Amino acid sequence: MFKIEMIVRDYECDIQGVVNNAVYQNYLEHSRHDYLLANNVDFVQLANAGIHLVVVRAELDYKQSLKPGDVFYITVEMEKESRAKYAFIQKVYRSADDKLMLQARTLGVALNERGRPTAFEALDNISL
Amino acid sequence: MFKIEMIVRDYECDIQGVVNNAVYQNYLEHSRHDYLLANNVDFVQLANAGIHLVVVRAELDYKQSLKPGDVFYITVEMEKESRAKYAFIQKVYRSADDKLMLQARTLGVALNERGRPTAFEALDNISL
Amino acid sequence: MFKIEMIVRDYECDIQGVVNNAVYQNYLEHSRHDYLLANNVDFVQLANAGIHLVVVRAELDYKQSLKPGDVFYITVEMEKESRAKYAFIQKVYRSADDKLMLQARTLGVALNERGRPTAFEALDNISL
Amino acid sequence: MFKIEMIVRDYECDIQGVVNNAVYQNYLEHSRHDYLLANNVDFVQLANAGIHLVVVRAELDYKQSLKPGDVFYITVEMEKESRAKYAFIQKVYRSADDKLMLQARTLGVALNERGRPTAFEALDNISL
Repeated sequence: MFKIEMIVRDYECDIQGVVNNAVYQNYLEHSRHDYLLANNVDFVQLANAGIHLVVVRAELDYKQSLKPGDVFYITVEMEKESRAKYAFIQKVYRSADDKLMLQARTLGVALNERGRPTAFEALDNISL
Repeated sequence: MFKIEMIVRDYECDIQGVVNNAVYQNYLEHSRHDYLLANNVDFVQLANAGIHLVVVRAELDYKQSLKPGDVFYITVEMEKESRAKYAFIQKVYRSADDKLMLQARTLGVALNERGRPTAFEALDNISL
Repeated sequence: MFKIEMIVRDYECDIQGVVNNAVYQNYLEHSRHDYLLANNVDFVQLANAGIHLVVVRAELDYKQSLKPGDVFYITVEMEKESRAKYAFIQKVYRSADDKLMLQARTLGVALNERGRPTAFEALDNISL
Repeated sequence: MFKIEMIVRDYECDIQGVVNNAVYQNYLEHSRHDYLLANNVDFVQLANAGIHLVVVRAELDYKQSLKPGDVFYITVEMEKESRAKYAFIQKVYRSADDKLMLQARTLGVALNERGRPTAFEALDNISL
């Protein structure tokens, strides 16, 4: 399963002394893009070519809080939901004890140059 | 209904030329805290006092993308879900045409000094 | 003098309970772009047209820390430094007592479609 | 010399398709804290103990722009400026060609529990 390891940076933490809720979406996006890149789908190149991978729904379950200096890893899986819709299942684990910190399900759609949802072969090949 | 107006800042936009997905969680957090403050619940003061309002689940439906310079407003409603759990229903509208850009449901819990979920009178009073 | 008022958002504050150092650059960029917009120079439109206004140097003097909920205003002035270089002088004041929190000097250059520094009439007109 | 390697994340890039100016301060902060940690000075632990390391001045020279996916490294050096003031000299290089992207000089002060500048033995030992 695809896996990327990262480390909490102090500036990502807020007044409560833990990683701010919004920052997990940054982590999730980065790991999704890295997952796609590992499967030869380049988010930025696509955007420049007029094909936009966009998020239509995100569900995040916050289990426990990452803290300054914590090392963690994110697993990424993808499932095809419908003709033009893909679901990313992602889990964030603290490396020290493999404890689940957050799990998320993100629904994405590929939009063509005219902004219409479109089947996207490169993504289909991954999810097979 | 509680409402706060904001404007998109250029640095909040990403390569696709629209507000980045994670930034909506920033907007939502800011408007929730502002809503609480308007109801005499000060998030920061509570954090300093050892009472942490934490998010346990977030659901975001991305409808359309905010762009640089867009003025928008966010509505906030709160419902009590269970003894120690509160749901925030938030909607983001573009001011120019009152079009719905995003809707979200955020579940929060109040934790006491020992990290235990706790009923929180100040929040109960709001949701009545 | 150009002036824009803003409010500190909780997520902009870090573990030390004050606005994180990097966030001031966000504030400064937003107020510069707003200043330019008020002078009919649209940063985003220019970027889309291939003309990039880029920062080549930034000097920030941190005087005192903004805190959660603080209302503040930023003043912006611009001076022409050389043919293709412009200096922005910006000051951040806490609204409650007009106390100076930060002052900054940002040097910017306009780059044309080939990435070459270029004199930029619209900016020249402002700085006159 | 102390060195930390990082990779540009897509969400750190803005409409111009390059890393946003403010994000470099995030990079710089993270690498400074990592440098201090490697020298047994824990920024977060200190903050919790009431000793705040604060930035009083930052100078950043932007040479060239990092782009999505770029791998880069940051070097960190520290010099004692005066009794309670320390200067961090940091350089950001693109790993692919060791090209200098940004250089920065950050002046920091250690404040004790009463908010007074204080000599800080642990930092002095590093800069020796």
